Amino acid sequence: MNDRFLRACRLEPVDATPVWFMRQAGRYMPEYRALRARYSLLDICANPELAVAVTLQPVDVINVDAAILFSDLLVPFAPMGLDFDFVKGEGPSVQNPIRSPADVDRLRTFEPRQALGHVLETIRILHRELADRVPLIGFGGAPFTMAAYAIEGGPSANYARTKAFMYSEPAAWHRLCGRFAATIAEYLRAQIEAGVQAVQIFDSWAGSLGRADYQEFALPHTSSIVSALKDVGVPVIHFGVGTAAILCDIAGTGADVIGLDWREPIDEAWARIGQDRAIQGNLDPTSLLGPRDRMFAAADDILRRAAGRRGHIFNLGHGVLPDTPLEQVQALADHVHGFRL
Amino acid sequence: MNDRFLRACRLEPVDATPVWFMRQAGRYMPEYRALRARYSLLDICANPELAVAVTLQPVDVINVDAAILFSDLLVPFAPMGLDFDFVKGEGPSVQNPIRSPADVDRLRTFEPRQALGHVLETIRILHRELADRVPLIGFGGAPFTMAAYAIEGGPSANYARTKAFMYSEPAAWHRLCGRFAATIAEYLRAQIEAGVQAVQIFDSWAGSLGRADYQEFALPHTSSIVSALKDVGVPVIHFGVGTAAILCDIAGTGADVIGLDWREPIDEAWARIGQDRAIQGNLDPTSLLGPRDRMFAAADDILRRAAGRRGHIFNLGHGVLPDTPLEQVQALADHVHGFRL
Repeated sequence: MNDRFLRACRLEPVDATPVWFMRQAGRYMPEYRALRARYSLLDICANPELAVAVTLQPVDVINVDAAILFSDLLVPFAPMGLDFDFVKGEGPSVQNPIRSPADVDRLRTFEPRQALGHVLETIRILHRELADRVPLIGFGGAPFTMAAYAIEGGPSANYARTKAFMYSEPAAWHRLCGRFAATIAEYLRAQIEAGVQAVQIFDSWAGSLGRADYQEFALPHTSSIVSALKDVGVPVIHFGVGTAAILCDIAGTGADVIGLDWREPIDEAWARIGQDRAIQGNLDPTSLLGPRDRMFAAADDILRRAAGRRGHIFNLGHGVLPDTPLEQVQALADHVHGFRL
Repeated sequence: MNDRFLRACRLEPVDATPVWFMRQAGRYMPEYRALRARYSLLDICANPELAVAVTLQPVDVINVDAAILFSDLLVPFAPMGLDFDFVKGEGPSVQNPIRSPADVDRLRTFEPRQALGHVLETIRILHRELADRVPLIGFGGAPFTMAAYAIEGGPSANYARTKAFMYSEPAAWHRLCGRFAATIAEYLRAQIEAGVQAVQIFDSWAGSLGRADYQEFALPHTSSIVSALKDVGVPVIHFGVGTAAILCDIAGTGADVIGLDWREPIDEAWARIGQDRAIQGNLDPTSLLGPRDRMFAAADDILRRAAGRRGHIFNLGHGVLPDTPLEQVQALADHVHGFRL
């Protein structure tokens, strides 16, 4: 087993910087597009055979040091009683979004080992398939981001409904996020039992919050997930976008690895986060759409800034974009592995 | 003339913190919605009588310390040969977006005093109407944001086309931004001649850039606009969203006033920007959708953090949202004026 990724998560020395890519299984891959021509996103998530195939697609053709479970952040919505689907070109759409405290209290609790057994089955198969290859990363959504999806019910430019709910109904907000925190913590524990060797918490929209709001409305709930996973002993990665102003607070969640977007140089962010954490990032995903020499130069800048410290996991600052040439992703992974100061 | 706003721009003492709101003329006002039921956004921009009326609407009913010209960032597109319109719910759509170096070279130059005479006429009327009341702010787009609109041609989540163009065609990119810099500088000079007493440069999308990219692809062109306005002696405000990671570079443009979004506490941002600049911001616009006491508390936090230093102009961290109750905007302006430590 290639354990570079796990060693970097634990701040141990590595023979080369480990690399994986958010959305490494996705539309930029011809194999993925072929499957998606026949199956919907939710079909793939619900069918272990398909989800296993999609998870393995990038591992087979790119020298990544980790696989990430193919699933969706919103998979826990259905067993909670939030009906949703994916609208072409728009992303998820929730048919019965949360708009009142009463809506929060209507949410159902569930046992992930039953209601999401298909995801755990996917993980068990992947664990066997990947045994001699690379570790498997599981994931879940942070309470703020889950609540924002549940309240907005669809895409949002400014999270106006979410924040209005937070400000106007703080008690119901904290009940909602407490519910998501308990649900996601249990779901991640179940993923770990089934075989994932690290978990990533996506707080995709936390960057929309000012610092005081992050501290009051998001941080306590994400922290409670991280705490609930501490005794399990697998690395917890936290990832968000546009988080430069709340980075130190995010480190306060206790996550072992902090995922960065591309906006701030990695060494400056790392200095603010502290030496006791690993860091994941942070190439602008659009770099892969430009010339190769420029992409390599941007990657080298990151590698140079992170050099000499343990705990750097190379990744993009956000997911691989659909128009990215596969060859650029392949070349980038090889380039990262070949980097020497 | 109430000159609090201009005094704060110049770091002079004021009797109360000046306040105005981005998009203070907009959909949240019943008077604006009534006009928009009869006229399109571009109709209003093109007709001085209508543009004057819309500009004055908030000045009549809210105690703001400045008016801002009602117009649109993309007004210079038409005389440059970029055809655009506003698509309901989606924002501007450019029919012939820039996709190649040849497209850049097809752009036309123009004399704003002729091609945009209607905007300057609006300013001349407003200058007379506002003579005894509050100063008038003019505005234009920063080259990066103008180029991003011209290249994307419509809304974009990640500016993938813009950045791919930047990386792949850097010479054409710099020609394009150089063209926008010259055009916007001349347009702002014409606005000042017509009577605006301050100008705001909107680099709305600069926050999508990593720091090295901002320095290479955006900063030099914005700086050239600021330099071109230095001898005119009116305050230049720079505004962008999600700029926490590039704030010091933005200050490097030389703008007199730096506009902040709501993500970072104003005192920390100000400390990074430096004591020699005024600062504008930075309440989360969604605060106005919540309870009044919470909105006041958030405003007080900003005012307390900025207290004891000259040069704070109170504003939101982005535009007033369409669902904002007018009474909240009115109450907020009065509350800011009444603030005492």
